[in-house]
Amino acid sequence: MPWLECVPNVSEGRDRAKVEALAASLASTPGVRLLDVHADAVHHRAVFTCVGEAAALTAGILRLVDGALAAIDLRGHRGAHPRLGAVDVVPFIPLGDATMDDAIAAARATADAVATRFDLPVYLYEQAASAPHRRRLEHVRRGQFEGLAAKLQQPDWAPDAGPARPHPTGGAVAIGARRLLVAYNIVLATTRLDIGTAVARAVRESSGGLRGVKAMALALGDGGPIQVSMNLTDLETTPMHVAYDAVAREAARHGVGIDSSELVGLVPAAAVGAVAAARLGIADWRPTRILDTHLTVR
Amino acid sequence: MPWLECVPNVSEGRDRAKVEALAASLASTPGVRLLDVHADAVHHRAVFTCVGEAAALTAGILRLVDGALAAIDLRGHRGAHPRLGAVDVVPFIPLGDATMDDAIAAARATADAVATRFDLPVYLYEQAASAPHRRRLEHVRRGQFEGLAAKLQQPDWAPDAGPARPHPTGGAVAIGARRLLVAYNIVLATTRLDIGTAVARAVRESSGGLRGVKAMALALGDGGPIQVSMNLTDLETTPMHVAYDAVAREAARHGVGIDSSELVGLVPAAAVGAVAAARLGIADWRPTRILDTHLTVR
Repeated sequence: MPWLECVPNVSEGRDRAKVEALAASLASTPGVRLLDVHADAVHHRAVFTCVGEAAALTAGILRLVDGALAAIDLRGHRGAHPRLGAVDVVPFIPLGDATMDDAIAAARATADAVATRFDLPVYLYEQAASAPHRRRLEHVRRGQFEGLAAKLQQPDWAPDAGPARPHPTGGAVAIGARRLLVAYNIVLATTRLDIGTAVARAVRESSGGLRGVKAMALALGDGGPIQVSMNLTDLETTPMHVAYDAVAREAARHGVGIDSSELVGLVPAAAVGAVAAARLGIADWRPTRILDTHLTVR
Repeated sequence: MPWLECVPNVSEGRDRAKVEALAASLASTPGVRLLDVHADAVHHRAVFTCVGEAAALTAGILRLVDGALAAIDLRGHRGAHPRLGAVDVVPFIPLGDATMDDAIAAARATADAVATRFDLPVYLYEQAASAPHRRRLEHVRRGQFEGLAAKLQQPDWAPDAGPARPHPTGGAVAIGARRLLVAYNIVLATTRLDIGTAVARAVRESSGGLRGVKAMALALGDGGPIQVSMNLTDLETTPMHVAYDAVAREAARHGVGIDSSELVGLVPAAAVGAVAAARLGIADWRPTRILDTHLTVR
């Protein structure tokens, strides 16, 4: 069986013991390899990067949902990142010889298992979506936890599995299938949110910016520096350095520099290879020039 | 059994049919995966990148030597790159959970098999060397094919296996064990070899330059542009972009720019990751942030 990546996002980024317990629930599932944990207090969110075969990942997600519903109460949850549920999103991504159909099948099987076991409403999104208007995660998540009871009653937003009412403390979960992406945040040397918002708007695809870029701006704490939080979903068209340079250019129009940048979770070798090839002016670059890409599990 | 990388260099870079036949001899060996072939007419040299278990790689090298001795006559060979034999160097590199001892054992076993089967003198080099003065490949290769008969008679330079006289058309072969390196060439926007030589001298470790950098300058054809040909052997201390910037800076002192750069063979994901992290200012970078590094065959 081919391997998939699974990157569940959970609405807890502050209580280290809770995050570690949730990580342990994944890491101790037979067949699941937990590769990275990224907890962010400002986002109030943790991102777990796992790989394994589909059945093992589904088993791991069931354990994660079990733990998250017990540990997290969204009624008191305030963070910078939008969220729909205690376990907020669960994307499956094909690796190696796995196909998108494999990832879609894993998403659907996990959705059914989660809905049945926990009486939790589930939306399927992106490649696993049941209708075009449900493809984009930002549309699925619109209204967030607080608007979920009303949303689930709308004819267009009946859940794909589970009840048409929110879990009282855990909301709902969006489960999907997608290609690899890079979650990449750039911190601007300013505390002005309006500048960050202008930069995010200028670079993101939905407002006419760069292909495959999703972006929003948020303050890192009250009066803290502004972060432009991005997902880069089409790395062949818009590599990381192109997004970085666009943010730098737009920020510079407001007289603002870049402070630093960070990855959330892991990055494909091909994505950093493209940046290096541009930096070094390597002629005839192709991702297969990276040794490790030939050595991965099929 | 853990995997090794093996990167034989052969003194034929112009006759495409010969290079393809040699590549096929490796690719058709059971258990050998041929990942890359890089032939260079100016260097008059081809570099094959293979991975596999030690025994399979030894079998592949025997087939490669057999084909190369039949196809290549060094008595008429003129290229820009120094060489000792028809099959010039055969390094073994540990991958994944393999150790340097695994690579050394593979080098020694291959040396014995090649010397016995083909009556060919073999020097062991780098980590597999039998004495400190034989560690550095450039010392083993000093005098080249043309000086080999005399060299093999020197008490300090008796072969590690095989006869103390050159193969008449195939010379000798250097077989070794080493860490991963990046073979990386930068083309300068000049045809002045003296400038290239000054740049190479400034950046290479042996003349006081950067740690782990070997460098030489050569002309890409008669009156052609100058290439600074480098091996980067300590990528943690001297990442690719640091070598690139040093070459650019030294060339600029002579009023010369950089035209392009090229990789020979493959590059480890960690090496391009370090370049990308520097380009993007990623805080808290580590090579384990690269997804593919977690998915490699152990």
